[in-house]
Amino acid sequence: MPTELAAIYAPVEADLARFDRLFAATLRGESPLVQPVLEHLLGYQGKRIRPGLVYLSARAFGRPTEAHDQVALVLELIHNATLVHDDILDEADLRRKLPTVNARWGNETSVLAGDLLFAKAFGVCAKIAAGPVLASLADAAHRTCLGELTQTRRKYDLTVSEEAYLGIIRDKTAALFAAAGLLGSRLSGADPQSAEACRAYGHAVGIAFQIVDDVLDLAGDEATVGKSLGTDLAKGKMTLPLIRLWSILGTAERIPLQSLLLEGHGDQGRAFVTGLLSEHDVLAYARERAREFSAEARTVLSGLPGSEARESLEALAEFVVGRSH
Amino acid sequence: MPTELAAIYAPVEADLARFDRLFAATLRGESPLVQPVLEHLLGYQGKRIRPGLVYLSARAFGRPTEAHDQVALVLELIHNATLVHDDILDEADLRRKLPTVNARWGNETSVLAGDLLFAKAFGVCAKIAAGPVLASLADAAHRTCLGELTQTRRKYDLTVSEEAYLGIIRDKTAALFAAAGLLGSRLSGADPQSAEACRAYGHAVGIAFQIVDDVLDLAGDEATVGKSLGTDLAKGKMTLPLIRLWSILGTAERIPLQSLLLEGHGDQGRAFVTGLLSEHDVLAYARERAREFSAEARTVLSGLPGSEARESLEALAEFVVGRSH
Repeated sequence: MPTELAAIYAPVEADLARFDRLFAATLRGESPLVQPVLEHLLGYQGKRIRPGLVYLSARAFGRPTEAHDQVALVLELIHNATLVHDDILDEADLRRKLPTVNARWGNETSVLAGDLLFAKAFGVCAKIAAGPVLASLADAAHRTCLGELTQTRRKYDLTVSEEAYLGIIRDKTAALFAAAGLLGSRLSGADPQSAEACRAYGHAVGIAFQIVDDVLDLAGDEATVGKSLGTDLAKGKMTLPLIRLWSILGTAERIPLQSLLLEGHGDQGRAFVTGLLSEHDVLAYARERAREFSAEARTVLSGLPGSEARESLEALAEFVVGRSH
Repeated sequence: MPTELAAIYAPVEADLARFDRLFAATLRGESPLVQPVLEHLLGYQGKRIRPGLVYLSARAFGRPTEAHDQVALVLELIHNATLVHDDILDEADLRRKLPTVNARWGNETSVLAGDLLFAKAFGVCAKIAAGPVLASLADAAHRTCLGELTQTRRKYDLTVSEEAYLGIIRDKTAALFAAAGLLGSRLSGADPQSAEACRAYGHAVGIAFQIVDDVLDLAGDEATVGKSLGTDLAKGKMTLPLIRLWSILGTAERIPLQSLLLEGHGDQGRAFVTGLLSEHDVLAYARERAREFSAEARTVLSGLPGSEARESLEALAEFVVGRSH
């Protein structure tokens, strides 16, 4: 974990340590055939942004409870399920500097391991009292899957607009972030207006996070980011820099880009696209859009009572747009 | 639907008609990009054995309620999610006489469409009062995924014993059947002993159903069964007839079978295996084992009060072992 993030997580360090133990326990207890696949996921040691958001939103109002742990577990399990499945679709080999599940055990095991994570999320949900909490989690899971599916159905579709892209990542990524903010705060007794602010904060941070993720996929360094990159381009996934580039280019300039996107490309093709991205400054444009969402997230927080946790939420909104991995 | 099954379902005809409407509604309401994929699933028109079990178990004790509809929806959604994912793993082209989702839209859409079905199951779960019902559903989902994963991890493993195979299908298939029997009856006010009988009935029927499914995969006629067959053999999945065959063969006879299983085979190879299966009568052996579980299921029912629904449950246990599709 980057030291910057460790500082941000300081108010919830004990919560995240407890979360890590619970998450590991949730992935344990299977047979020797299945266990190594799940253990492998523990090695990923991600940024734990969704649990972080749950606990920071909680600490802005009170103390986290068992319900917060359950919400954090469900969100992280769903996130991990989609990661494992994404890596199949992207044919990615590397995730957080380790082989992906598909690289190590093949696609079939990956499909089913992802399903098992969904089932484990179900198992945790079954402990949560019914009502609005469960409904929010289910809605977030639904949007996550829907956003992923919509994005896949629009692959190689050069007519995807910036608005459509934002709609996709709002579902695919921001829904889980928004649920983390909403439920984290609400379960700590936040008033409805503050809980809505935390939801809106999570939503905006989620969009900013995904835009930067998509920028890194086009322009990041694999050794730094620690996962397979360039998969969006290889798979025809239309992300913000490409969408912006397409809208800027004249008809004549579009032709080589179009054929490259539709017909695949080698290193040379990737270099050509990288050249265009740089020439038209669209990575900077995308990062600027991400910064706008980050600023929106921080503005939304202004109505919340002052606390160390609120400062961390502000810093987290900065962190997601500044990160290079 | 076979006429035989229609007769069995007579006591729950209205319940299944309502279920069909609710299931269709659950799959509707998505964007034009996503909707056709989900609509396609509606065309499958399966045997609806899990919902059938829920309503028959309910009618053996009382009248189905909204809670029964929710349980039936969750079980059928989870079942459909695993079907869509199974067809990817099996590289199957045909399902209930229609193209599979992977054949029509590719593997990526199939992975995500299956995930969306899991999320929709979540959504229905969120309406169910917490407690034992939700815990049973989550446990069944967990076992289903676990059984699938264990089976995949033991592909091409000739040491899988009959006992291990039964353990796998107990999770993979019987768990959802058992949950259908248990929850269907319990939510209709069945006493604990009767609810346990319905659970044990579902469990035994589920095992019988899966054994026959595996026999049909080796020996069925695609036009009759309506789905891609022979995928178990092609994918090295060790099912009961093959396990039995392996245990019967002498060391010398095992060698050609082993190389065929491990190194793949064409039509000629399949004919060789079919010859061995027939010579050693192992399909008949497997069907006999299925009949034993079917008989066990019917015995378990004997303590239940007499009703039309109970007769249908008895007939359903017969149906699953007699079927040729």
